[in-house]
Amino acid sequence: MSSLKFTAETSSDGVVERDFTVGEIPGVLWSPAPGRDRAPLVLMGHGGGTHKKWPAMPGRARRIVAECGFHVAVIDAPGHGGRPRTETDEREIAVMKRAMAAGEPVGPIVVPYNLDIAERAVPEWRATLDALQELPEIGAGGPVGYYGLNMATAIGIPLVAAEPRITAAVFGLFWPHPLSETAKRITIPIEFALQWDDEHIDRQAGLELFEAFGSKEKTLHANVGAHKDLPRFEADSAARFFGRHLGQAA
Amino acid sequence: MSSLKFTAETSSDGVVERDFTVGEIPGVLWSPAPGRDRAPLVLMGHGGGTHKKWPAMPGRARRIVAECGFHVAVIDAPGHGGRPRTETDEREIAVMKRAMAAGEPVGPIVVPYNLDIAERAVPEWRATLDALQELPEIGAGGPVGYYGLNMATAIGIPLVAAEPRITAAVFGLFWPHPLSETAKRITIPIEFALQWDDEHIDRQAGLELFEAFGSKEKTLHANVGAHKDLPRFEADSAARFFGRHLGQAA
Repeated sequence: MSSLKFTAETSSDGVVERDFTVGEIPGVLWSPAPGRDRAPLVLMGHGGGTHKKWPAMPGRARRIVAECGFHVAVIDAPGHGGRPRTETDEREIAVMKRAMAAGEPVGPIVVPYNLDIAERAVPEWRATLDALQELPEIGAGGPVGYYGLNMATAIGIPLVAAEPRITAAVFGLFWPHPLSETAKRITIPIEFALQWDDEHIDRQAGLELFEAFGSKEKTLHANVGAHKDLPRFEADSAARFFGRHLGQAA
Repeated sequence: MSSLKFTAETSSDGVVERDFTVGEIPGVLWSPAPGRDRAPLVLMGHGGGTHKKWPAMPGRARRIVAECGFHVAVIDAPGHGGRPRTETDEREIAVMKRAMAAGEPVGPIVVPYNLDIAERAVPEWRATLDALQELPEIGAGGPVGYYGLNMATAIGIPLVAAEPRITAAVFGLFWPHPLSETAKRITIPIEFALQWDDEHIDRQAGLELFEAFGSKEKTLHANVGAHKDLPRFEADSAARFFGRHLGQAA
């Protein structure tokens, strides 16, 4: 197991931002000001084609740190954020670009490609969680959540199904097949976002993935608008969801 | 037009609760501590078979007062809370009780009966709003919201469609026919709650009423559980929705 190495640190508005590596995996950890007790941890994934510091990531992370006093960690997915690409990555990205340029459906390309990425990403997330829990301000045995939309839902569903340390999750904006089979095994509280007029993911398909989760407590948030128009207030809602389920540490 | 008369006043936790009448209509107004400027107003309806001080009403009202610093007014619906019942009321209540005792579907009874109540209730709400806006702490021209589930959605949809002073609304837990025709004319921001496993309202029917609203900004919150199991955190979400749309006065 690789341990976590911090490589850079900045601080603003009471939030500490630290770049780190766990072996080959680059990540960033947003934390409340030091000197507090241990606090819960939210693992957050980025969407396809972006990276750990894509503007939505620090935006969502800072809300969770400010609202709840939790830690939030993001890692670059395989093939993303300057990480080396496999032959599969290069081929699938080229196919996707052609489909998008031609106005063809992207689901048949995105789904299998993101599941390929997920197979590589799940062990990386588990190693990262091991390393993060060695930090004294996080610790082993504390509450852990997962927050990921789009590709980060394709990674997060198999991760959460395999990882009993994660006890609450926010997912959304992905296709049901074949992930709904894995989602059935998930029983932790879920908040699930979909866009009512998603031009890529059919409305019934989105509802089908929400329906699949085995959780007794799950909430669907459907907003009018296209795939990329998820309202910003959903990030506030996610922060409150984690606050309720991982415990208010602030 | 009848003016508003206060008949009782109590205060706790920084919230002032005043019973009032507007003509024959009894109501209650929850307000922030006096001495502030004018604040927005949320009109809140109670469900069928309950009344203006049914526990959910002060619970939801106090959250909105505390979170947003707004006023919240509830009035007893026709035939509810000790108000006189018409022959229609007596007959429909008896029919509904028999259906519930026999385990028969209640929709075919509740929908026409609640629309009958709505015809009587809409002019009462408009008269109450006129009278409330004469209070110096509310005033004319300020932001007004509407918050009502179950029967209060059956009343609220025709009210909001007719009343341009109302600029944001929370609805939910009702059947689409024939209300969705009226909902199409509503274009203000909407938050809409439904229960994923509602034993009275079919899931597709609930989604159909959400779909009907003409609003560009509308959000569906669907939670796992039966008709009466709407989670309490939806009341917090409604308070934040009104805070966003009516302006933070606190």
